[in-house]
Amino acid sequence: MEHNGLLVVISGPAGAGKGTVVGELIKDDNVEVSISATTRAPRGTEKDGVEYHFLTREQFQQMIKQDGFLEYAEYVGNYYGSPKKQAELWMAQGKDVILEIEVQGCKKIKENNPECISIFIMPPSMEVLEHRLRKRATDSEESILKRLSRAREEISLARDYDYIIVNDGLSECIADVKTVLKAEKLRADRFDVSEMLS
Amino acid sequence: MEHNGLLVVISGPAGAGKGTVVGELIKDDNVEVSISATTRAPRGTEKDGVEYHFLTREQFQQMIKQDGFLEYAEYVGNYYGSPKKQAELWMAQGKDVILEIEVQGCKKIKENNPECISIFIMPPSMEVLEHRLRKRATDSEESILKRLSRAREEISLARDYDYIIVNDGLSECIADVKTVLKAEKLRADRFDVSEMLS
Repeated sequence: MEHNGLLVVISGPAGAGKGTVVGELIKDDNVEVSISATTRAPRGTEKDGVEYHFLTREQFQQMIKQDGFLEYAEYVGNYYGSPKKQAELWMAQGKDVILEIEVQGCKKIKENNPECISIFIMPPSMEVLEHRLRKRATDSEESILKRLSRAREEISLARDYDYIIVNDGLSECIADVKTVLKAEKLRADRFDVSEMLS
Repeated sequence: MEHNGLLVVISGPAGAGKGTVVGELIKDDNVEVSISATTRAPRGTEKDGVEYHFLTREQFQQMIKQDGFLEYAEYVGNYYGSPKKQAELWMAQGKDVILEIEVQGCKKIKENNPECISIFIMPPSMEVLEHRLRKRATDSEESILKRLSRAREEISLARDYDYIIVNDGLSECIADVKTVLKAEKLRADRFDVSEMLS
């Protein structure tokens, strides 16, 4: 029997609520969230090892050379990546590891880790998404329109994910994610048939 | 959004409890079990349309010609098959259709219906399976040994299924099957992304 935890990518447009979903999921002792590494400077009250692992460019590039990332990318001059070692350690302990990453990052992880499970958190409709983004009231009109346009782009790629879960209510959405993780553990390729017959 | 029901193959060795599992699942109004057609004669109290659809050889061959079966096979001179029309009707109504069939039948269905979900009901161990078969006490020693040998063969092919669910307690086993069906409905390819963006 395969006791390894699952590698789970969770994506979704801003306003779909994926952060809240992940926050609820990791209340389970058997679920951990991967903390990204970045070369960008900490902002405000951000602490190393909490929001991000803050690395120098040299440290990051060294880790790339050592195959230390599940995926990484460069945005606007800064590196961002998902460290491999901690994730693999948790999985070996039987814990599910969640990566809250972008659509592009998901593609890269799938290439190297085809066994990973990808979940796209979908807003119930574009109208609801717009309403949620406007309710935050901290963003300018321009920024809201930019986020909506980006959301449409991301949603158009959602079919590449394994699962699409509509967030039309947090508790149901979380229950659905848990259902998916439970079902994935029942996959035949995780079962040791030869042990059964020995 | 795809509202079609699922086509679900359930297999497993005699004594694994798949009949009981299926019996529990169809208590749900949204789950139906496919009744096989056969050319063998009814036995004892068997009624047409209950245990089987009893057909003449000519009727069965006519249905084969009309592509009327999801799968069919000939055993010991008799045809057995899963009628296609009723299953498709139920699925169009959003109902999940369960086929309780053998490993070979599952392979054939997968070929023509790659979207079908296959679940193998596994006994907790060969020891437990043997114990269950002996408890029935209606079978001869020879018949029990034959069933055990066949069970080993079937189990060795279980990895070809999508899911393996151990029946180590009926209620948990049924909950696991329901979890799988629920998760399968969250698959991205059942979601109409274009409708979302229209």
